[in-house]
Amino acid sequence: MIDEEFMFRENIRAMPPYVPGEQPAAGSQVIKLNTNENPYPPSPAVAQALRSFDISSLRLYSDPFSKAFRKAAADVLDVPEDWILAGNGSDDLLAMIVLACLAPGRKVVYPSPTYVLYRTLAQMQDCDIVEVPFDDDYNLPVGELISAGGAVTFVARPNSPSGTAWPLEQIEQLARGTRGLLVVDEAYVDFAQDSAIDLVRQLANVVVLRTLSKGYSLAGLRLGFAVGNPDVLGMLNKVKDSYPVDSLANCLGTAAMRDQAYKNANAKKVCQSRQRLVESLTERGFAVYPSESNFVLARPGDGNAQGLYQGLKDRGILVRYFKEPRLDDKLRITVGTPQQNEALMNAIGEIVRR
Amino acid sequence: MIDEEFMFRENIRAMPPYVPGEQPAAGSQVIKLNTNENPYPPSPAVAQALRSFDISSLRLYSDPFSKAFRKAAADVLDVPEDWILAGNGSDDLLAMIVLACLAPGRKVVYPSPTYVLYRTLAQMQDCDIVEVPFDDDYNLPVGELISAGGAVTFVARPNSPSGTAWPLEQIEQLARGTRGLLVVDEAYVDFAQDSAIDLVRQLANVVVLRTLSKGYSLAGLRLGFAVGNPDVLGMLNKVKDSYPVDSLANCLGTAAMRDQAYKNANAKKVCQSRQRLVESLTERGFAVYPSESNFVLARPGDGNAQGLYQGLKDRGILVRYFKEPRLDDKLRITVGTPQQNEALMNAIGEIVRR
Repeated sequence: MIDEEFMFRENIRAMPPYVPGEQPAAGSQVIKLNTNENPYPPSPAVAQALRSFDISSLRLYSDPFSKAFRKAAADVLDVPEDWILAGNGSDDLLAMIVLACLAPGRKVVYPSPTYVLYRTLAQMQDCDIVEVPFDDDYNLPVGELISAGGAVTFVARPNSPSGTAWPLEQIEQLARGTRGLLVVDEAYVDFAQDSAIDLVRQLANVVVLRTLSKGYSLAGLRLGFAVGNPDVLGMLNKVKDSYPVDSLANCLGTAAMRDQAYKNANAKKVCQSRQRLVESLTERGFAVYPSESNFVLARPGDGNAQGLYQGLKDRGILVRYFKEPRLDDKLRITVGTPQQNEALMNAIGEIVRR
Repeated sequence: MIDEEFMFRENIRAMPPYVPGEQPAAGSQVIKLNTNENPYPPSPAVAQALRSFDISSLRLYSDPFSKAFRKAAADVLDVPEDWILAGNGSDDLLAMIVLACLAPGRKVVYPSPTYVLYRTLAQMQDCDIVEVPFDDDYNLPVGELISAGGAVTFVARPNSPSGTAWPLEQIEQLARGTRGLLVVDEAYVDFAQDSAIDLVRQLANVVVLRTLSKGYSLAGLRLGFAVGNPDVLGMLNKVKDSYPVDSLANCLGTAAMRDQAYKNANAKKVCQSRQRLVESLTERGFAVYPSESNFVLARPGDGNAQGLYQGLKDRGILVRYFKEPRLDDKLRITVGTPQQNEALMNAIGEIVRR
């Protein structure tokens, strides 16, 4: 028996148990379109870096500042190296921001529905949470976000699960109206038309988050980074893990970052597949939100998303179903290869016909 | 300009900036005896696992529960798999424990001096901190630790920077007297005579932390784990990162864990080198604490540790000097290869002679 009340914080005890996303067993033949992974393998430069990696170097601690990786990212984004901070996936950077900025009596603000981790991390810190609902078209509620006055405001752009983005002018308006930190989470930026990165140079309260999980096909490597003013990153540095990024991630991530051509070519293929997928779904009677991501949020004509989710699962195709208000009539579907998307549409055809 | 006060928590703003340990430049010829890394490379089984790793699998998220690795660790330690929780180094598990248990008004307790991260993590959560001073022989102040009554009590065994351990009976006494969580940090256990792991089975408030950084020569891989009662691990699970351990660390860590013979043979070599190093230092007039770690805490005869630290650094040998009361007359020296230890003793001979 343990004395839970004495050991653990009340807010942590009140949180529901951790439930992971669906993971098909290793080696299964499932078509996995539920967690927005890239359907293409990482760059050949990453494979080459892995082959020439010196295994004996693993006995030493990894570079605590990921200097080589940050140099590569700085070159690509045309910012100084001290404007970049690396972490164990962009989730790690989100956790660092929450830890540095939020506590009981301090406020976080974000539009909703969005990436669920913002809420989870905020609950861990027991801070005030203001969720500003999107309208049905997922327009950005700029005025309400500003007037909520968060120490931190999170905006995922493109947003998940909607896949949508908004004009950069609205992000700039939000940043200029916000006294706190504005975090623009660009996990899906490689599939979008533009980025808020230029705003970071102009406005010191803007931080952009990037990840190698999506565009670079490296979800399994856990590498993300923040781009921001050194004054802000210096505060985040205080709460960073001593060695957040391991030596293999530093090495392989640097190789991936230096091969922009490969990443861009894959992103282009994904965007072309997305276009065809949207057309196919629309023909099938789905209402599909305009996506700038590697996934689409789509409502089947009859609104029976749960039935469709289950029917697809029975046929070995995993998509994402959110059992919550405003989302439970829709599915979030990752864009796969043309073959995977065709298999998906065939399965949908079968299910809808019956 | 940013509004630091509005954005960031007061306790974080008050913290000193992050200062990393000394890292010699890549490719430098420095003999690095300052961060307690293993002088021998990882197991050949790890090299084999790296060679046969399927790079295309990195496009998918890593196993959020590190099942294969936990199975291997469970086999080695003879506990069920759900008694094990993996993290991005044991520092990650320390951060999870602090996040789950500590907040303003809640208390952490540990003997001092010890691993500095306990204090840093506690400061991040702005909790009450009780540091119980060791006496000069580093005896464990069991009664004072108990009566301090922490929601969490940390004990590093073997302790750093002293390198010392204490009879397991004292740990059991501490555990039985403690209402809160007792975390026994066994980062250096592979070089010690025994482990508190059996206590975990008997007392639900005991958690043991292990790492692959030291005994397994994998500091650069970032992989650690907690061994504890599922009731405790279930609460820690609530604050875990979604994918804390990357796919390469899961794969290579599993291979390392399954090769106990290699790890044990290296640990034996390190312990033998430690014995010779202690003898050499003692002959040179040093007072050396009895070490059960892969490092020793040693006081030069004249107490001029800072001068010696600098003299060694000038000769390309890095050791650890702590510029703080009770430690500033001693050096913490990692046990290297026999050749490195000989180079160290030769350099000390040169410096002391002058």
